[in-house]
Amino acid sequence: MSLDLVIRNGTVVTATNSFAADVGVRDGVIVEIADRIDDPAASQVDATFQLLLPGGVDVHTHMDSLSFGMQSADDYRTGTIAAACGGTTTIVDFAHQQPGQGMLETIEAWHGRAEGKAAIDYGFHAIVADPTDAAITELSQLPALGVTSFKVFLAYKDGPMVDDAQFIRILATARDAGAQVMVHAENGEMADYLQRQHVAAGKLAPKFHASSRPPRIEAEATARAIALAEVIGTPLYIVHVSCEESLEEVIRGRERGVDVVAETCTHYLYTSGEDLERPDFEAAKYVFTPPPRDRRNHQVLWDALARGDLEIVSSDHSAWSFATQKSRGRDNFTRIPNGAPGIEERMTMVWQGVNDEHITPNQFVALTATNPARRFGLYPRKGTIAIGSDADIVVWNPAAERAIRQESLHHGVDYTVYEGEWVEGGPRTVILRGEVIVDDGDFTGAPGAGRFIHRAAVERQTAVS
Amino acid sequence: MSLDLVIRNGTVVTATNSFAADVGVRDGVIVEIADRIDDPAASQVDATFQLLLPGGVDVHTHMDSLSFGMQSADDYRTGTIAAACGGTTTIVDFAHQQPGQGMLETIEAWHGRAEGKAAIDYGFHAIVADPTDAAITELSQLPALGVTSFKVFLAYKDGPMVDDAQFIRILATARDAGAQVMVHAENGEMADYLQRQHVAAGKLAPKFHASSRPPRIEAEATARAIALAEVIGTPLYIVHVSCEESLEEVIRGRERGVDVVAETCTHYLYTSGEDLERPDFEAAKYVFTPPPRDRRNHQVLWDALARGDLEIVSSDHSAWSFATQKSRGRDNFTRIPNGAPGIEERMTMVWQGVNDEHITPNQFVALTATNPARRFGLYPRKGTIAIGSDADIVVWNPAAERAIRQESLHHGVDYTVYEGEWVEGGPRTVILRGEVIVDDGDFTGAPGAGRFIHRAAVERQTAVS
Amino acid sequence: MSLDLVIRNGTVVTATNSFAADVGVRDGVIVEIADRIDDPAASQVDATFQLLLPGGVDVHTHMDSLSFGMQSADDYRTGTIAAACGGTTTIVDFAHQQPGQGMLETIEAWHGRAEGKAAIDYGFHAIVADPTDAAITELSQLPALGVTSFKVFLAYKDGPMVDDAQFIRILATARDAGAQVMVHAENGEMADYLQRQHVAAGKLAPKFHASSRPPRIEAEATARAIALAEVIGTPLYIVHVSCEESLEEVIRGRERGVDVVAETCTHYLYTSGEDLERPDFEAAKYVFTPPPRDRRNHQVLWDALARGDLEIVSSDHSAWSFATQKSRGRDNFTRIPNGAPGIEERMTMVWQGVNDEHITPNQFVALTATNPARRFGLYPRKGTIAIGSDADIVVWNPAAERAIRQESLHHGVDYTVYEGEWVEGGPRTVILRGEVIVDDGDFTGAPGAGRFIHRAAVERQTAVS
Amino acid sequence: MSLDLVIRNGTVVTATNSFAADVGVRDGVIVEIADRIDDPAASQVDATFQLLLPGGVDVHTHMDSLSFGMQSADDYRTGTIAAACGGTTTIVDFAHQQPGQGMLETIEAWHGRAEGKAAIDYGFHAIVADPTDAAITELSQLPALGVTSFKVFLAYKDGPMVDDAQFIRILATARDAGAQVMVHAENGEMADYLQRQHVAAGKLAPKFHASSRPPRIEAEATARAIALAEVIGTPLYIVHVSCEESLEEVIRGRERGVDVVAETCTHYLYTSGEDLERPDFEAAKYVFTPPPRDRRNHQVLWDALARGDLEIVSSDHSAWSFATQKSRGRDNFTRIPNGAPGIEERMTMVWQGVNDEHITPNQFVALTATNPARRFGLYPRKGTIAIGSDADIVVWNPAAERAIRQESLHHGVDYTVYEGEWVEGGPRTVILRGEVIVDDGDFTGAPGAGRFIHRAAVERQTAVS
Repeated sequence: MSLDLVIRNGTVVTATNSFAADVGVRDGVIVEIADRIDDPAASQVDATFQLLLPGGVDVHTHMDSLSFGMQSADDYRTGTIAAACGGTTTIVDFAHQQPGQGMLETIEAWHGRAEGKAAIDYGFHAIVADPTDAAITELSQLPALGVTSFKVFLAYKDGPMVDDAQFIRILATARDAGAQVMVHAENGEMADYLQRQHVAAGKLAPKFHASSRPPRIEAEATARAIALAEVIGTPLYIVHVSCEESLEEVIRGRERGVDVVAETCTHYLYTSGEDLERPDFEAAKYVFTPPPRDRRNHQVLWDALARGDLEIVSSDHSAWSFATQKSRGRDNFTRIPNGAPGIEERMTMVWQGVNDEHITPNQFVALTATNPARRFGLYPRKGTIAIGSDADIVVWNPAAERAIRQESLHHGVDYTVYEGEWVEGGPRTVILRGEVIVDDGDFTGAPGAGRFIHRAAVERQTAVS
Repeated sequence: MSLDLVIRNGTVVTATNSFAADVGVRDGVIVEIADRIDDPAASQVDATFQLLLPGGVDVHTHMDSLSFGMQSADDYRTGTIAAACGGTTTIVDFAHQQPGQGMLETIEAWHGRAEGKAAIDYGFHAIVADPTDAAITELSQLPALGVTSFKVFLAYKDGPMVDDAQFIRILATARDAGAQVMVHAENGEMADYLQRQHVAAGKLAPKFHASSRPPRIEAEATARAIALAEVIGTPLYIVHVSCEESLEEVIRGRERGVDVVAETCTHYLYTSGEDLERPDFEAAKYVFTPPPRDRRNHQVLWDALARGDLEIVSSDHSAWSFATQKSRGRDNFTRIPNGAPGIEERMTMVWQGVNDEHITPNQFVALTATNPARRFGLYPRKGTIAIGSDADIVVWNPAAERAIRQESLHHGVDYTVYEGEWVEGGPRTVILRGEVIVDDGDFTGAPGAGRFIHRAAVERQTAVS
Repeated sequence: MSLDLVIRNGTVVTATNSFAADVGVRDGVIVEIADRIDDPAASQVDATFQLLLPGGVDVHTHMDSLSFGMQSADDYRTGTIAAACGGTTTIVDFAHQQPGQGMLETIEAWHGRAEGKAAIDYGFHAIVADPTDAAITELSQLPALGVTSFKVFLAYKDGPMVDDAQFIRILATARDAGAQVMVHAENGEMADYLQRQHVAAGKLAPKFHASSRPPRIEAEATARAIALAEVIGTPLYIVHVSCEESLEEVIRGRERGVDVVAETCTHYLYTSGEDLERPDFEAAKYVFTPPPRDRRNHQVLWDALARGDLEIVSSDHSAWSFATQKSRGRDNFTRIPNGAPGIEERMTMVWQGVNDEHITPNQFVALTATNPARRFGLYPRKGTIAIGSDADIVVWNPAAERAIRQESLHHGVDYTVYEGEWVEGGPRTVILRGEVIVDDGDFTGAPGAGRFIHRAAVERQTAVS
Repeated sequence: MSLDLVIRNGTVVTATNSFAADVGVRDGVIVEIADRIDDPAASQVDATFQLLLPGGVDVHTHMDSLSFGMQSADDYRTGTIAAACGGTTTIVDFAHQQPGQGMLETIEAWHGRAEGKAAIDYGFHAIVADPTDAAITELSQLPALGVTSFKVFLAYKDGPMVDDAQFIRILATARDAGAQVMVHAENGEMADYLQRQHVAAGKLAPKFHASSRPPRIEAEATARAIALAEVIGTPLYIVHVSCEESLEEVIRGRERGVDVVAETCTHYLYTSGEDLERPDFEAAKYVFTPPPRDRRNHQVLWDALARGDLEIVSSDHSAWSFATQKSRGRDNFTRIPNGAPGIEERMTMVWQGVNDEHITPNQFVALTATNPARRFGLYPRKGTIAIGSDADIVVWNPAAERAIRQESLHHGVDYTVYEGEWVEGGPRTVILRGEVIVDDGDFTGAPGAGRFIHRAAVERQTAVS
């Protein structure tokens, strides 16, 4: 049978292998990998001197999100175009329950946000922000709808924070339903207390964001979440590990056999508390949670990624306009909406860890595509280059050099925390299910072409050692 | 171009992926992997309902070896036929320097042992047992000959044991030559002291093999080897980790950034100190070093394999005839030659960990093929199923059931430590560089068809997390 | 000046020293220690072949307590007579705030319970069980009244449990007031959840008390309490550490510099989960919280006491009548009032650790008198034998042997968990501020003779290494 | 009976207690401690506003020592006068076996060095530097002579270093004889290798002393010594722990139940690698082994002392003349004799830790007197203020201020590493067995008045927690 697309002369890179090969695609699926494919094909891409990577999988994004009483600057159109341009072909986005809303209604709402707009494939995690009895009951129905991960916040008091009783119920519900639970791990009561102390003391500048959320409160909540998940027996996922203190808790949990996996986010590998001291309110761009930490944590996190104690790098893309939204906290850091964009920068910034010899190209693939796809029930359809997998492929030019500039990014927000960073290596061509959606940096796809991915129930993680 | 071999209808399993595909081979190399290969081929293998695994890579074997003043019961012919029948297509065998012998001469001698006899591919590690100045100088020449790992014994006083001064010189030589150092980690002085104490006290039965080599002396030497390699900056490999105490040292070393990788061996996953109490001198079959430990270590080791703290399972195949060689220690356990066979049983026994849900099929591939090939410079030629890799493929029947019986094994020795174990899953057809060498349990290859593999210098391990 | 009392020919034992000496007392205070005191004295005690120990200090008792909707079986009269007969001359008892009650009122109420009844000296900790704004405000006034420790429960939902927000406020209040915080560390939400699960599943027998409160939930709350106290900067005291899991959290906290001290209780050194399987509802006698654990923890706890990782052994004396109060839970373990008596048995049972060579006589003194007195602001008035200290002295007969029997105990409750234990060593004569209050096992003191001890603000612990 | 001496109006400080009292002495022994001693006495000392501390016990000194082919600058006369002036009344000095010498002969030789010269009491440890069969056999006789600790060096190749076989024999001999083993823990082979590498590379300045002895080689040998002592069952003492890496090994050993105690030395609390960069060869004054480490270790060590993970502070007094002996290494750091003086500075410098609130006065007493006396069989005769103990008492003036200056020290060497340090608190009057030997800074005792102390066999350490 004839092929729809052949990518020729590239070097395929998976979490395990790197080899020169042509890749043949039919009906959006990879059907052939061979030293040379002579068969005719409807179209072809030349990948001489290029790497062929599985399309990035970003499992921590906040698109079109209502938080802190504001609408995020990226909707599904701008956000997924940015993702595509950065080499990401699948996201698992947070469907964020609003107060009073049901969980089914929440998922429905998110379908509405994505449909007709998403330029890449997508799945949903359900944020349980108002854990009423009704909401928890509805959670059990979500796996049947392809939503197999529920997220809770242990921070953000008077916001989406859940208490331990609610958390335990959600853990038990998830376990019984075949879902995992994701945790934003900070002790929210302590963060709230420290924020109020800071405010009362007139400590209002952005830098106090860090001192009001010290590493110990992240470590505490991490340890607690792991202990509770251990007792209930629910697979657990710790989002945005930022520092050695909480990493240590993850390691301890794993060594005693708890099914816990953890991610860090791109910005914890590059930013630090010093950024919170930038003048002219620039610091507000770096107000995300957990806050940027001491520089020494960069090496700690890279080592943990290389060693496998952290398995995934996500973006935690949260787009708040510096000009119009971050500015609300100009006089009081507690009013700055938390978060930073990063969906387009993620693949390129993590790749710098290959250049710097923190990780190998295969580890890069594992961290940005294979591991997230596996942990979140997208695999083997997503996250690898293999026969039968979706033809989500990034033609990656390891020799491309450029500075990251806000003006060349595609997201809907007005800044990047990596402004001016000189980078080497990046996506040249991005292919989604056999269709070229980014060509030489230009988005050529179509909003609405992205499909919802029904995710599988979580199984025990099967990390390659 | 036409293909030499097509394997149809199987499920390819790599360290990362599992997918249904046909595999095409030309000139002994995998050239095509596709959902369906219609091209004609000189030969074909049907793999319906079968898994296609990379041929096993066993990096810890002792073939045709002179130790304890005896010749081992397996030469390259019997030993590699047994390996092939068990699903292993590459070994890295120990070229064991004899007193007074040079290292080049040692390697040469091993080439002589292997040539014309080896039924599968092979490489050599160099055991440095008599570290004269001349020997150490010659070590530097071995990487150019494809021998990029040097092994030392920190035990076996009055035998191959090296002292710290010698060990340090070898570490430094290896580092400069692009080789890694493998360590048998037990405090040899303490083992010697305890053996003499036992003998003096009339404690001569096989069970005293265990009490004369307690876990702490393994842990001590493991910690010491890691510390010395850390200071010198040499990649290190710890052979046959048998217990939690030494595993803990490996974990600590890795967490502080030392390039150390460790294996366990098949028998530590199944045997225990209780086997050393078997009557009628049966216990002698279980006299290997380190000795079998408490049963609780089985779970500890499986967990470490699943988590990636141990990366490889080897056989440490050492074939001493129970009837004629083990028997020399009937009256004194210190005279029992240490070691047990296992090259044929390894793949099947480790697969039972898949059945028991200790590990996944992908992890099985990583532990038995991909990781050892990577760590020992055989990769990507060996250890995976990928375009350009040698077509070393095991057609694995996950449904085959049988009891392990000495009479159906192919090794040259007269017993197996797994006698009577009921197993599920095993190799049906074994292919070496595109040639079927085992068909339905029968060896169909040719002694002498195995080739020496020139191994690459060691690089920092690139474990997929 | 003449002496009121001389104790002759004994061997003084302090936390540091053991030496033969006579001890002279005037006005209730030790004024002379000498190889021989020839001075005349109003009275004298001969202590030939006896040890002179500081009177026991028990900092964890519940006298005349209203909990679980019941009145405890011991009031101050019976409870402190039992204490005296066991060799304890000072208690720090829990003044337990009732719902709606103020803290000052609570302390006042406890003064009322003790006055005219207490046979030994006493101080109060304040249990904050209803942390209203008013109650927390009043806490600040307690140190001026000699109450310098506030206790919270992280367990007992729908009872005295506080949440993290309340706990943090109490920590901050304590820090500012010069008090320490004591914590009952179990995750109360999880205990509540597991209890309800057990009940729903018809698991109602006493043995389910253990499975509804697994070690991990104790360890979790211990870690959390330490983390929160660390951030706030408040001295912390962990009551009743029962197992290795929570001990590990204490050790970790101390190694990172947190001012946290922990106790275990006598019964964790002797009872185990097996006691919860005793027939005929006998098991209910062993329903205390945390529950008795696996036997292997006995050695773990003794080692921690010897090493200094645990610094104090308390009784957690909680007297619930087996016949009339424990029996309320005959059909449902969750209705069994939690607790066991032990104030009279504590000194003798811990001394068995001297006989068993777990600890030395000096360590015994440290664990039962010196360390609790130091940590709780009673020192140097209480807890040691030194010039100027209160003449609270136990003449201890190391050679006395007997079986512990309920009928020979003085407490107001109808059982002992040590029934039938054969013990060696015990108090012969007990002296409170120079007055003999127990003579050869008979109480000779007077209810009401005990005085309230105004305790000092807490300072950083100064453990002798 | 009348008293020989009364010390009036001071505050007695022991490892446990601090209280105002008069102290009465008869026949060199403390016989009375009382709030007020009115009895007449032959002599008296007024200690108003002063503390009464047990005389310092320094268990790590090298007097009149032949090492590195040189005679140390202090003999027993100058060295013990310096000790006395610093507040130390007992030393346990190293009797250092010379090559070919027997152990009995070694002890005899040291008696010869001390007799007629020692101004304070003294005991001996035996350094086993040439562990011939004869020497090891003789070791067993030393406890009967009051020498109950044997020291080995795991460093100093081609000098006193022992190998593991010798170390194991010495451990076993000590265990059987009732002695403990003291270990200088550095991997001597690695130190030797690194020294030769440095010299070969022309790295000859004093600062390379540090890089040739990195923390890891201290940690390695510490771990090894603990493991070997654990297997043999011998009480172990680690001398001069200098850094976190080796401290961690001590902690791990203790937590698994090994009878291991460790000291640090005064200079590790105050000096650092920066001192090895001092100009004009000043750096050579700081060449001791292990070398001074990173400053961050100061806090680590103080914390460990406060927590009890390190139990003793010794001086490791090694007096090499800067002008005539240190200078031999001007062109090659490996020829600088290792060591620094400190016997006179020890008590005062450790007291600064009280001023700085690292430790309490009671902990000071424990670290400098009680714990060393206990661990080394001098207790209760030495190391405390108690009835029956030798009247070795330091009248300590906590208010005295001065700068440490070489010209005011009494040792026989020409420098102090604390030159110019401003200190508060120090010895005013020093009393040895009831005789004033230092009065207001002047030595008033007599060389030769010191007595050899026959030490008891070691028992399991009984640290007060």
